[in-house]
Amino acid sequence: MGEPLTPPLTEDEVLRRALVAEKHAQAVDLLQRHELDCWLTFAREGSDLLLPYVLGNEEIVGTTALMLFADGPSVAIVADYDVLGVEVLFDTVLPYSLDWREPFRDTLTDRRPARIGINVSENDHGIDGLTHGLFLRLQHVLEPLGLAGTLVSAEAVSSRIRSLKTPAEVERIRRAAEITVRIFDEIGAMLRPGQTERDIFEIAVERMQTYGVGPAWEASGCPAVTSSRSRGGHGPAGLTRLEPGDGLRLDFGVRAEGYCSDLQRTWYFRRPGETAPPASIQQPFDAVRDGIALASELLRPGVRGVDIDTPVRQLVEQRGYQFTHALGHQLGRLAHDGGMLLGPDNARYGALSSGTVEAGMVFTLEPVVGPVGIEEDVVVTVDGCEYLVPPHREIFLV
Amino acid sequence: MGEPLTPPLTEDEVLRRALVAEKHAQAVDLLQRHELDCWLTFAREGSDLLLPYVLGNEEIVGTTALMLFADGPSVAIVADYDVLGVEVLFDTVLPYSLDWREPFRDTLTDRRPARIGINVSENDHGIDGLTHGLFLRLQHVLEPLGLAGTLVSAEAVSSRIRSLKTPAEVERIRRAAEITVRIFDEIGAMLRPGQTERDIFEIAVERMQTYGVGPAWEASGCPAVTSSRSRGGHGPAGLTRLEPGDGLRLDFGVRAEGYCSDLQRTWYFRRPGETAPPASIQQPFDAVRDGIALASELLRPGVRGVDIDTPVRQLVEQRGYQFTHALGHQLGRLAHDGGMLLGPDNARYGALSSGTVEAGMVFTLEPVVGPVGIEEDVVVTVDGCEYLVPPHREIFLV
Repeated sequence: MGEPLTPPLTEDEVLRRALVAEKHAQAVDLLQRHELDCWLTFAREGSDLLLPYVLGNEEIVGTTALMLFADGPSVAIVADYDVLGVEVLFDTVLPYSLDWREPFRDTLTDRRPARIGINVSENDHGIDGLTHGLFLRLQHVLEPLGLAGTLVSAEAVSSRIRSLKTPAEVERIRRAAEITVRIFDEIGAMLRPGQTERDIFEIAVERMQTYGVGPAWEASGCPAVTSSRSRGGHGPAGLTRLEPGDGLRLDFGVRAEGYCSDLQRTWYFRRPGETAPPASIQQPFDAVRDGIALASELLRPGVRGVDIDTPVRQLVEQRGYQFTHALGHQLGRLAHDGGMLLGPDNARYGALSSGTVEAGMVFTLEPVVGPVGIEEDVVVTVDGCEYLVPPHREIFLV
Repeated sequence: MGEPLTPPLTEDEVLRRALVAEKHAQAVDLLQRHELDCWLTFAREGSDLLLPYVLGNEEIVGTTALMLFADGPSVAIVADYDVLGVEVLFDTVLPYSLDWREPFRDTLTDRRPARIGINVSENDHGIDGLTHGLFLRLQHVLEPLGLAGTLVSAEAVSSRIRSLKTPAEVERIRRAAEITVRIFDEIGAMLRPGQTERDIFEIAVERMQTYGVGPAWEASGCPAVTSSRSRGGHGPAGLTRLEPGDGLRLDFGVRAEGYCSDLQRTWYFRRPGETAPPASIQQPFDAVRDGIALASELLRPGVRGVDIDTPVRQLVEQRGYQFTHALGHQLGRLAHDGGMLLGPDNARYGALSSGTVEAGMVFTLEPVVGPVGIEEDVVVTVDGCEYLVPPHREIFLV
């Protein structure tokens, strides 16, 4: 038997190509609507966190210019050793062996874009992918051509490429959330008084390996395991033992097929004879739960982030509690996916809280206070929002 | 029993703190020698690939200014929710709840650095960690203070922080290389005619899980598994079957405790009655092996990268073969760790090949040609270099 000249594509590769094709089409539409001629992702080895959208991976090594145009064929300028995997995604692939500048200049001369969007943002980490060193390299090529003034932030396009999830992206996040819920259930069945926070962390790590998924954020703090007697925060799980009378909060997400979940659940370790948590645990839990329910009623396209955060913050404060962070952030390839968020109007969040909710965004809802945690993941629909997994309404009892 | 107020440190945490303390001391020494007053790592969530050296991890979320000074105490300006884990590493920790700019301005006014090195490099991806958006944010604070001109590239310090491995760093890379060799041995024992490249890839993935290590580069191409009848490149393993008469090349590295290996080994699948590989496999193998031996004799402190690449390239060409890439690159937290390399003087590598070898650098040696691969990892000593694992001298036979 001879070898097939072109081996059949793996399922992963089929999915990668489909996802990139969807994002390219979305980008062309956004370029037209936001009056940009070109979206340029200028990158080299591992340097731009928008590469997964434009390329489906971050496998390039050499200096690379990936250009999507509002009008006309897309162009990829890549080192010859990076061509494989890029050629099926772009209309025109211009490989170079030594110097990327020549095909880049030729493309500019040929296509004459007046406004080129680059991956720069002062306030949104999720789309601020261009390093300053690469910006300087771009400038050195554009200045002699009199084109340095064509560079603008691609924000109007790139923030929506990240924010506005296609149905395939929402399904990936949903699957990550479903795996997380399954791991919560399995951990819940294994909880016993006397376990340390670190013991519980280790169970979660073993479960991730079983399901073939990774942590949604820095491994040493995912999940964050916090007893009601601990200091909390996102550091590694500690050695505090869970004893009767303790609350337990898990803040946990997994990354599956490149997309993240981010959920929180609360348990209570009963004392002998207890049938329910004490008021010190139940009351803040109810405040958080009701805050999330209110947020889910308010969240819809066209509303500003701060206008959802404010009433939820008021509700929680009326119950006698306070949260200082934002009500919720976007979720996607990153657990903190960047872009506008549901937050207060202050120096920390103001620039992002004033943004407007659009259909296809996925948010966390997490007005977490004191020793208890509930965090839900929701996708914004045309007229409201929808939980990706069933919300946490009652404290789990151990 | 009461809970200890401060739980004992995990082994990981002890190692993290020791490694960061070593790198901080190294940085202060480099600042003094290269006439920089301050090395500023200005970052936010996951944004700067130098964070592991300055902080031991990348767990920060908010805007963060980490400042090491040539003279005087170090300063970390971090969001209050990021303080945990930072406070033990810096002399002065200035937490803020909403706005980082106030403590940053105060620190500048107090310490008055005339030259502040930032993580910017046009040619070295390994130290070009500052995004352009964050650079603009810095400028907006510095300009009103008349200090915009204080910013320069930290290259002289940051490239050596990455390049000049401490003994603890070399040991981590050595352990990663040892695990890789062990996995090569185990794969070798399992090779059979009829397996596909993808079958062999899957064995390596399973072995990494067994040893609790990750791939040193993009998972889908690590290892790169290439039969002598395949196109090669760094893409996912294909479906070509290994049959008698085929050569097999594995290009593989693992990441263990944050540090990478990067090695290549070659097998030959014998035909019935064969006792040795044919000349079409053996001759290029010998050329690569002898090229590596020559490189290891030439590599020592004070030599320029191009002056090692050139004679090795000549040797391989005299044998009738050619390699177009660099002879070797640095290895560390990244498989391609950046910095000066052992390469030719051309448009692709020239700026990096003219750099000078220093003791403590770790390089790959990989003058790979045609269907065979050998790649070794070596550390530069005071008067030469040393292999991290025993070099590959003979083709493995299946």
